[in-house]
Amino acid sequence: MISFLDLKAINQRFDAEIQDSFRQFLDSGYYILGNQVKLFEANFARYCGTTHCVGVGNGLDALRLILEGYKILGKLEENDEVLVASNTYIATILAIKQAGLKPVLVEADLENYNFHLASLKKNISERTKAIMPVHLYGQLSPMEEIFKISKENNLLVIEDAAQAHGAKNNEGKLAGNLGDAAGFSFYPTKNLGALGDAGAITTNDDALAEVIKKLRNYGTSTKYVNELLGFNSRLDELQATFLNVKLPTLDADNEIRRAIAKKYISGIKNDKIIFPNYDGSENHVFHLFAVRVENRNDFIDFLNRNGIGHLIHYPIPPHKQQALSEFSQLAFPIAEKIHNQIISIPMSPIMTREEVQNVISVLNNY
Amino acid sequence: MISFLDLKAINQRFDAEIQDSFRQFLDSGYYILGNQVKLFEANFARYCGTTHCVGVGNGLDALRLILEGYKILGKLEENDEVLVASNTYIATILAIKQAGLKPVLVEADLENYNFHLASLKKNISERTKAIMPVHLYGQLSPMEEIFKISKENNLLVIEDAAQAHGAKNNEGKLAGNLGDAAGFSFYPTKNLGALGDAGAITTNDDALAEVIKKLRNYGTSTKYVNELLGFNSRLDELQATFLNVKLPTLDADNEIRRAIAKKYISGIKNDKIIFPNYDGSENHVFHLFAVRVENRNDFIDFLNRNGIGHLIHYPIPPHKQQALSEFSQLAFPIAEKIHNQIISIPMSPIMTREEVQNVISVLNNY
Ligand SMILES: Cc1ncc(COP(=O)(O)O)c(/C=N/[C@@H]2[C@@H](O)[C@@H](OP(=O)(O)OP(=O)(O)OC[C@H]3O[C@@H](n4cc(C)c(=O)[nH]c4=O)C[C@@H]3O)O[C@H](C)[C@H]2O)c1O
Ligand SMILES: Cc1ncc(COP(=O)(O)O)c(/C=N/[C@@H]2[C@@H](O)[C@@H](OP(=O)(O)OP(=O)(O)OC[C@H]3O[C@@H](n4cc(C)c(=O)[nH]c4=O)C[C@@H]3O)O[C@H](C)[C@H]2O)c1O
Repeated sequence: MISFLDLKAINQRFDAEIQDSFRQFLDSGYYILGNQVKLFEANFARYCGTTHCVGVGNGLDALRLILEGYKILGKLEENDEVLVASNTYIATILAIKQAGLKPVLVEADLENYNFHLASLKKNISERTKAIMPVHLYGQLSPMEEIFKISKENNLLVIEDAAQAHGAKNNEGKLAGNLGDAAGFSFYPTKNLGALGDAGAITTNDDALAEVIKKLRNYGTSTKYVNELLGFNSRLDELQATFLNVKLPTLDADNEIRRAIAKKYISGIKNDKIIFPNYDGSENHVFHLFAVRVENRNDFIDFLNRNGIGHLIHYPIPPHKQQALSEFSQLAFPIAEKIHNQIISIPMSPIMTREEVQNVISVLNNY
Repeated sequence: MISFLDLKAINQRFDAEIQDSFRQFLDSGYYILGNQVKLFEANFARYCGTTHCVGVGNGLDALRLILEGYKILGKLEENDEVLVASNTYIATILAIKQAGLKPVLVEADLENYNFHLASLKKNISERTKAIMPVHLYGQLSPMEEIFKISKENNLLVIEDAAQAHGAKNNEGKLAGNLGDAAGFSFYPTKNLGALGDAGAITTNDDALAEVIKKLRNYGTSTKYVNELLGFNSRLDELQATFLNVKLPTLDADNEIRRAIAKKYISGIKNDKIIFPNYDGSENHVFHLFAVRVENRNDFIDFLNRNGIGHLIHYPIPPHKQQALSEFSQLAFPIAEKIHNQIISIPMSPIMTREEVQNVISVLNNY
């Protein structure tokens, strides 16, 4: 049996350090927005190459607070349109809705599971004010093209980097530093995962970072002085402690993920399985290894019989979710095809050589 | 030097159990909405005497999700009016605004720092749909009178119980079980405090509990199936672990707080210091021991010279906060007087007899 993801084992690698830092946390007596949050913000900003990182409660809030921040700064207004991929994890769209903006869903590209660029352009209107590329499964969106489109149309570019910690473009720039601002999730299963909910915003925009620091903390910068109608969405001091322990290993973990992906792609010779389009570069950090198959139920039966873990990311496209029934009449044939065919197979930085080989052998027999 | 609040020492009492439960948490490998959250929800519902407890990210979100939940259930609508005390901690009002409702600020009562009941009645309009009593500083609001008013006017009663864990009315019913629903904060400094942000909702309303369970979790009840436009606001599994360790001590802690309050009130003989109006009952859990003085700056100098910790809860009334400038033209003379005169002196379940005696002696010399 090869589990889809053994989080316990992933974190066990850091057991001693986690215990130590927990002891220090207890001894500090300071549990809210303390030194560990500051340290993580400095560490992660340096890692991403941005001037700012602001820790928040989770990835959904990270995206929402970016949008709320831009509203306060006058760069976005109620009902402005935001372009977003129709095959993203729904949280991206929830963030846009919660911020009082209008998500405009864009057809996906079967090659990279990101925006279909021609559709992206077609959906730009007078009201469009931002593009929100999602680096789905860990693969960078085509940022150069997106950047070009944003320049031509004077749009903000807000990365949803929840699945792409450490992904690098060809100039060596990292996810989180490829647009005006980026939202990260450190949900436990992410490439950089906390031991609970956590998130962050990275940006080079001083004004935005300052506003978000207030918004996450009831609208205050000084205790009990409320300048803005704020929220409560703070990166937990304790989660920051764990993230500080784990961050130094992120690049090595991503390297292992890429090595496994390469083995899968070169080792599995099976026409029934469609692989991600991967050029071998650091553009992809393989948060998930998602393949497509024509007959997914049949494939799942096969995986189950052979003891190979799997999950579907995601079974229902956002526009077919009850929560987004306003979009239910829209048709996104490619996004729908992806949702019908996609399936994630085991991928993690602690898979053994044997496990990887085992997955390859099994899938060669499908 | 007597510190205002020594959180480190408060939590050190649980050190061994906290370490143990942390070990178990690590070994479980399950960090989101797991067994510890379920256990805490069962424990805290039983403690409050309600049929439901739903753990969420923090106290502000607890209040907001109650209001959002009632909107989904059709009991509240955008722009409905919600009555709230003008001297509350601003989070209560932020929750109302974030849920798209209209806070109507009500003058405070100098006797109990809760609603001035005549003003409460005067502010009821056609649009009023809910009352939000805040059990400020740990003292129950006059719930019988509030309940009578709510019955007559068909209003929801939503308790802000963030400062009143364990406060009991004369029939032995607890805060959290005195209205239609209640929001709790487990911010570290609270009578029941986590080691980070945490909150919960208690209610006997099955439908509300069910909706809030979805709202806190992206609008899902089944993974990847989004029924509602949800948020991300989950009680952290790890924080739930700590709360499970600490809950059994809450009643004893509250008893110590009351005993200290009684000593302060009987021991300090000083006309310049106005005490909380306390009848010796379990209605009050003394989250804070807030007194009033005419010349607060002078009093603060005196406390500083004598090494007695203090904090002001709160220095600026909500309607004078920049974030709520829409209310800046309103006048609440009593609330303003409270904000000008109030000051909290040391109060915690680990103060020694000597420390309490020391505070008393010092204040007798003011
Ligand atoms: C593009 C994008 N934007 C915004 C967001 C929003 O960020 P957020 O608000 O931080 O969640 C996401 C989040 N996205 C993720 C989403 O990708 C999905 O992630 P997932 O890895 O499939 O999560 P899962 O199903 O809970 O866990 C996967 C496996 O891992 C095991 N597991 C899990 C947990 C939590 C555990 O403790 N122990 C375990 O053993 C059990 C499962 O087999 O579902 C989550 C609820 C979202 O937060 C996103 O992908
Ligand atoms: C009625 C009502 N409704 C809704 C809410 C919202 O709930 P929330 O979203 O959970 O915050 C509140 C919250 N209310 C509280 C509010 O009462 C106030 O609480 P407070 O006890 O004065 O908080 P503080 O100033 O941070 O800490 C007091 C002392 O404790 C020390 N300390 C503090 C921390 C955090 C620490 O880790 N270690 C320490 O040693 C330093 C300080 O001397 O300010 C908080 C930010 C709010 O969450 C409320 O009162």
